Amino acid sequence: MGGRIADRIAALGLSLPEAPAPAANYVPWVQSGSLVFVSGQISQDAGGLIKGKLGADMDVAAGAAAARACALALIAQLRAACAGDLDRVVRVVKLTGFVNSTAEFTDQPKVVNGCSDLLVEIFGDAGRHARSAVSAASLPLGVAVEIEGIFEIA
Amino acid sequence: MGGRIADRIAALGLSLPEAPAPAANYVPWVQSGSLVFVSGQISQDAGGLIKGKLGADMDVAAGAAAARACALALIAQLRAACAGDLDRVVRVVKLTGFVNSTAEFTDQPKVVNGCSDLLVEIFGDAGRHARSAVSAASLPLGVAVEIEGIFEIA
Amino acid sequence: MGGRIADRIAALGLSLPEAPAPAANYVPWVQSGSLVFVSGQISQDAGGLIKGKLGADMDVAAGAAAARACALALIAQLRAACAGDLDRVVRVVKLTGFVNSTAEFTDQPKVVNGCSDLLVEIFGDAGRHARSAVSAASLPLGVAVEIEGIFEIA
Repeated sequence: MGGRIADRIAALGLSLPEAPAPAANYVPWVQSGSLVFVSGQISQDAGGLIKGKLGADMDVAAGAAAARACALALIAQLRAACAGDLDRVVRVVKLTGFVNSTAEFTDQPKVVNGCSDLLVEIFGDAGRHARSAVSAASLPLGVAVEIEGIFEIA
Repeated sequence: MGGRIADRIAALGLSLPEAPAPAANYVPWVQSGSLVFVSGQISQDAGGLIKGKLGADMDVAAGAAAARACALALIAQLRAACAGDLDRVVRVVKLTGFVNSTAEFTDQPKVVNGCSDLLVEIFGDAGRHARSAVSAASLPLGVAVEIEGIFEIA
Repeated sequence: MGGRIADRIAALGLSLPEAPAPAANYVPWVQSGSLVFVSGQISQDAGGLIKGKLGADMDVAAGAAAARACALALIAQLRAACAGDLDRVVRVVKLTGFVNSTAEFTDQPKVVNGCSDLLVEIFGDAGRHARSAVSAASLPLGVAVEIEGIFEIA
């Protein structure tokens, strides 16, 4: 697999995970017209699930790293939606970031920045997106972060 | 009302509720282009609101049943958006499921499966959707589940 | 700046805030086709951030006022997306309202009505939207309400 974006990912020293398969009766992404809706990606990496609750047992830096892992998972799903060619990505349109946090934690944006920053590193201006970042009282399997995305592809 | 999907709903022994009217200054669904955005449907059935908090006073099976009730409400709204003809549904595009749960509960996906599974039972492959499932610290009127959906129609 | 909607805003005795700039590596809105996705707008006004937690230190009326401030911020972003001409707004399509609340608070819809009502006051029938209103365990910077929106523009 080649292409400008794939080269950029490699130049950043990154590799995409296998696009995680959902654990249930749904699918990782659906395309409708030029929009691709990617299912919420939970924080995980080669070491397994990234669990934690911000404000309790995880700090902002670790939370941002978890969000960065979500970004890689989102891109892996997007690559599948693009039949392998990430150069077809026109725009990262919208992210919704859910941060597993206590009722007192208020730095959700700094956590979700781990995802936003990587998307811009990889896609440049096309990676700049609309976004919401909120707290969830808890998340599936105890993960720290879950992020869903809407993308426009050619 | 007839059609392939309506027949399928009847064959499953199900009937759609009246499309619930929203309690405020908004509407149950809006169509833009081929996409229909359906408002968050709270868990309720003929017996009234399905209330509960997962991890406290409701188990996963009851939560999944509540999510299944949300699916019926979503389809009822979708039927209205399709002027009664559910065969116009091209694809269930995206669900966001909010589960009323404690900070310790981590089986949100198993709860939202109650909705996802029914959509696939009814719509087949067209019912397979992108999805996020997260916890909400609480939900309107104390209901157990609220699910919103995006659908593509012809 | 003129136009029917701008006149309506003035007639209501309202003025739009400066479109708040996001605090991170994302943007206030993205247009894809005829849809504009506006980032989650946190409750703030000329006096600064509107902080609070419903069910604890803020009542429904104050929460609705916070949601109304979110509406003004959404419209300010939308005005930018329309290059200043709000008459290009075809429809308010969908809102998602996150209410900072305790696990016992169940009047999220009444809070988010502060946003919904103002959109209908300003845009009339084109302001009627699909909506979800849920609780968030906490929100960025301790604000009371965060609302994101999808809009169709000409």
